[in-house]
Amino acid sequence: MEIIKTVKQMQQAAHAIRTGGESIALVPTMGFLHEGHLTLMRVGKEHCDRLIVSIFVNPTQFGPNEDLEAYPRDTEGDLRKAENVGVDLVFMPSAREMYPQGAQTSVVVKDLPRHLCGLSRPGHFDGVTTVVAKLFHMVNPHVAVFGQKDYQQLAVISRMVMDLDMDIQIIGVPTVRERDGLAMSSRNSYLSAEERQSALSLKKSLNLAERLFNEGERRAQAVKDFVQSYILEHPHTEIDYIALCDPVTLEDVNTLTEGTLVALAVRVGKTRLIDNARLRKQKKSKKQ
Amino acid sequence: MEIIKTVKQMQQAAHAIRTGGESIALVPTMGFLHEGHLTLMRVGKEHCDRLIVSIFVNPTQFGPNEDLEAYPRDTEGDLRKAENVGVDLVFMPSAREMYPQGAQTSVVVKDLPRHLCGLSRPGHFDGVTTVVAKLFHMVNPHVAVFGQKDYQQLAVISRMVMDLDMDIQIIGVPTVRERDGLAMSSRNSYLSAEERQSALSLKKSLNLAERLFNEGERRAQAVKDFVQSYILEHPHTEIDYIALCDPVTLEDVNTLTEGTLVALAVRVGKTRLIDNARLRKQKKSKKQ
Repeated sequence: MEIIKTVKQMQQAAHAIRTGGESIALVPTMGFLHEGHLTLMRVGKEHCDRLIVSIFVNPTQFGPNEDLEAYPRDTEGDLRKAENVGVDLVFMPSAREMYPQGAQTSVVVKDLPRHLCGLSRPGHFDGVTTVVAKLFHMVNPHVAVFGQKDYQQLAVISRMVMDLDMDIQIIGVPTVRERDGLAMSSRNSYLSAEERQSALSLKKSLNLAERLFNEGERRAQAVKDFVQSYILEHPHTEIDYIALCDPVTLEDVNTLTEGTLVALAVRVGKTRLIDNARLRKQKKSKKQ
Repeated sequence: MEIIKTVKQMQQAAHAIRTGGESIALVPTMGFLHEGHLTLMRVGKEHCDRLIVSIFVNPTQFGPNEDLEAYPRDTEGDLRKAENVGVDLVFMPSAREMYPQGAQTSVVVKDLPRHLCGLSRPGHFDGVTTVVAKLFHMVNPHVAVFGQKDYQQLAVISRMVMDLDMDIQIIGVPTVRERDGLAMSSRNSYLSAEERQSALSLKKSLNLAERLFNEGERRAQAVKDFVQSYILEHPHTEIDYIALCDPVTLEDVNTLTEGTLVALAVRVGKTRLIDNARLRKQKKSKKQ
């Protein structure tokens, strides 16, 4: 497994792969890899000849009061896991390599960030789209793989790729969960044992929303109220948002339909967790 | 000479050229081609195996009170000229093909547009960088060629390419002029005979600035005043800006040095013209 730290070497390596007639899958990560990331990598491997993983804790997508400094890091563990999954190349640039002095260009998606996480994390998605556009130009992938856990991120990146005519296929992979339902996230490592119990309320409340929908409830506000009450029954929880929205525009809906996105951001202690689900009609209603 | 009108076909054609091991030069234009454009094309041909020219009058780089509707067009003449120069492929998408409904992504360079033309044309450079980024993703060129007449545009695009790590060489080509010194521009076609005479004051005032510099003048304000007086002596002229600035940051300078950029935008009648020069020390002073 090759490790590259400079943009120039990365572009040369990507060029060599393409010239050799092979295809490239990219999985961009911020490291501290867990089973969710490894699943993205396995999907990437299925689609292309070569699998490239980037590890970069991107400072521009953290707000001034967010957890950039505290964000968990484990380079040695990451490299071992990547190698085990069969990654061909890990690209891990420094912040200075990624953002040389004088850099002043950003890629901005206008409307999609005005919802959900974009509201409580101003500038976050500008940081995401800019770094992902840069990574795409560095790695020149045929396919890039992202998790559906970060639903809005996936939507924003897909929009960017479409709007800027990037010749890249974006693949979204269903959220990977712990056995008890908690969506995998590097930030789960912040949780105390008690907080971790409360964190289960996110996935359980998504199940609750789906059950209400399958029982015939179509009023978004009613479901939202139920979900909110349910989560707040658990200690240490504080709601950032509960949204029932259109899965394409991310605009709030009043009336639920099949496919409506239920998206949550909840603080559990000091840790901000997100989760989401699309409402589906169950074949065997009420049973899940 | 091939003519392509859809993004998909353009990407396929570019992919086929690259797969065949050939290099691509792109000259982006808004059509109504003149000798300036043809010079860019000849430079492109020297650098690459295949020469692609785009013709697209980009609505997003025109302000609400600018000349989008009136902008001169001559598709038939353009295609004839392109063919004569040896263009391999002309890409001429419609506005709807370029900006499908729902598009909401832009590429924004922050600081460089806060000078010169960016001040009187708010949003102009966002339109330029976004469409050029899109064209780069469509045509996937090794080299792209732009005129130095649009100095700020060249600076902004070069910055974008660097900041977003686009693997493209940007080449700037010196301004091509009419025999009497007028910088070639599609907008020259708007000028009446009398206005055209007044328009010569732009280039002449640049020569005047250089002469003052070579006579020892180092005060930017003094040169600016001279240039302004000179231009305003000519009928139908109205100054948009006269700037003496750093050629990299485009920030105003107080003291002139070799390489200082002198940049002008002047309305002659209703037509807005631009021109620029870098101050050079003459070997034989005062003679030119």
